[in-house]
Amino acid sequence: MPAAERFSGVLAPVITPFHKDLSPDANRLIAHCRWLLSQDVGLAVFGTNSEANSLSVPEKIELLDRLVESGIDPLKIMPGTGCCAFTDSVTLTRHAVYAGCGGVLMLPPFYYKGVSDEGLFRSFAEIIERVGSTDLRIYLYHIPAVSQVGISVELVERLTRAYPDIIAGIKDSSGDWNNTLSLIERGGADFRVFSGSESFLLRNLKAGGAGCISATANVNPAAIRQLYDLWQAPGAHELQRELNELRDCLQMPVMIPALKAVVATFLDDPVWETVRPPLTPLGRDQKDLLLGKLAGRKFAMPGLRAGAPSRPPA
Amino acid sequence: MPAAERFSGVLAPVITPFHKDLSPDANRLIAHCRWLLSQDVGLAVFGTNSEANSLSVPEKIELLDRLVESGIDPLKIMPGTGCCAFTDSVTLTRHAVYAGCGGVLMLPPFYYKGVSDEGLFRSFAEIIERVGSTDLRIYLYHIPAVSQVGISVELVERLTRAYPDIIAGIKDSSGDWNNTLSLIERGGADFRVFSGSESFLLRNLKAGGAGCISATANVNPAAIRQLYDLWQAPGAHELQRELNELRDCLQMPVMIPALKAVVATFLDDPVWETVRPPLTPLGRDQKDLLLGKLAGRKFAMPGLRAGAPSRPPA
Repeated sequence: MPAAERFSGVLAPVITPFHKDLSPDANRLIAHCRWLLSQDVGLAVFGTNSEANSLSVPEKIELLDRLVESGIDPLKIMPGTGCCAFTDSVTLTRHAVYAGCGGVLMLPPFYYKGVSDEGLFRSFAEIIERVGSTDLRIYLYHIPAVSQVGISVELVERLTRAYPDIIAGIKDSSGDWNNTLSLIERGGADFRVFSGSESFLLRNLKAGGAGCISATANVNPAAIRQLYDLWQAPGAHELQRELNELRDCLQMPVMIPALKAVVATFLDDPVWETVRPPLTPLGRDQKDLLLGKLAGRKFAMPGLRAGAPSRPPA
Repeated sequence: MPAAERFSGVLAPVITPFHKDLSPDANRLIAHCRWLLSQDVGLAVFGTNSEANSLSVPEKIELLDRLVESGIDPLKIMPGTGCCAFTDSVTLTRHAVYAGCGGVLMLPPFYYKGVSDEGLFRSFAEIIERVGSTDLRIYLYHIPAVSQVGISVELVERLTRAYPDIIAGIKDSSGDWNNTLSLIERGGADFRVFSGSESFLLRNLKAGGAGCISATANVNPAAIRQLYDLWQAPGAHELQRELNELRDCLQMPVMIPALKAVVATFLDDPVWETVRPPLTPLGRDQKDLLLGKLAGRKFAMPGLRAGAPSRPPA
């Protein structure tokens, strides 16, 4: 098998459906992933917005196997595999490589705070050495507001020097544009920098970045992908403005229950609202408020309900 | 089997020894646990200072089994079982109950930040309902500086109301004495409040608390236990002062490498210095500085090296 091409474009941190008993729902996940692929959006399963950190390692392995067995191209899948314990990260990463995934998205170990770059380097190095595969492609995952353990630009430089073929890129969810820019400038020629939100997509592409991995892509994939395709066209700024407006409607401290409420509503499938604790589903009032804000807006989800995968006209 | 008595006294969050290849070292752990028990100190294995969050669920299960198989009384063991994914917490907690442990110490799920008390309540409730055993005793674990997700006094009240026989106490590592006092006052008659450091031990016992679960107990168990036994004696304040002085010598942003360096030195067993990434062992200079500070001080570790478990004279 040839080594995977590095990712670019738009990926969704795919929300994870649960049955009412809170067990993962592989069939609904497969259906959602197929729809996202039909919109030219890749599958960053097991990200923050996938409630990945509320899933055990065996649950994630089982879901990944089900996705691949369903016929979904593993090269389009970038599962999150970074755990607190490097032994867990090794187990998951090894499985992702075995399954033929195009890459993995890797959180740093996030329980112990105030750890050194040296310690984080050793953690990533230990995982890479133990997985021991030239097929491994790692996209680092920098999301300091949630993990509280960040990945500095210096650490990225050290990792790319030590493992130039394996350290393939980063998702920067810092919300700090200067940090994203530093990563693009200092990450190296083929280092793929994804912004963690489509709000930065146009700026990121103009600066030489690779795309975005954004929660909103779960409900608005086509329009985000459209901006990726047309970023050099005259209407790009208008597309970015529309994306920002829709994102503002969905913005909440934790976006997952809102995304699930939208999917549940437009698929007329209430079980999609189920979240695992410690998250809680939206209350009735919050949901009404959200759907009110979205009413009449042009985005992809309503097209799904009508049975026809929608692409806004280019 | 009768239900376990609730814990009181002094427990050590037992440091976890690793082989040079970073695999857990059950034999050294058993030896350390036996020594701690000989000093009248209980075994809070898989705590923060145990690098528990750098261990996978199967690794923790294997270590717990080895401890119990070695003949150590499981009623003296309070394993940490709180993980990010409640399914992992259920697996570990169920195993601890099956092994006959006197209780478990439970972190809240700590990846998602800014979650509600309602979500945390549902998480603990889900674990309790799924474990489904009247033998379960949970000690909540409040360590906001590390987990970044705290357990409020209101949440404690709600949990003790819902599960009065199961929610048995809390370890308060907030470092906020007023919080500890609120927990003692509002936790209920038999709710066991442990301070997370021996610095608060005398105050805690005077206010009606149950004892402490402190990292320092790994190297200074006898003296901490002595204060627990003699807190009403005339010399108690002097004992507390001496404990504080020793703790000051060991204090660092992350105490684990220092504790391991002390054990390695006094056992003349360098492999004890091994930590899992993202932690790093002390550098030569840090170690010399630490051992210099400890030189000539009276504490339990040197007695261990001499072959005789030490108890300072009462």
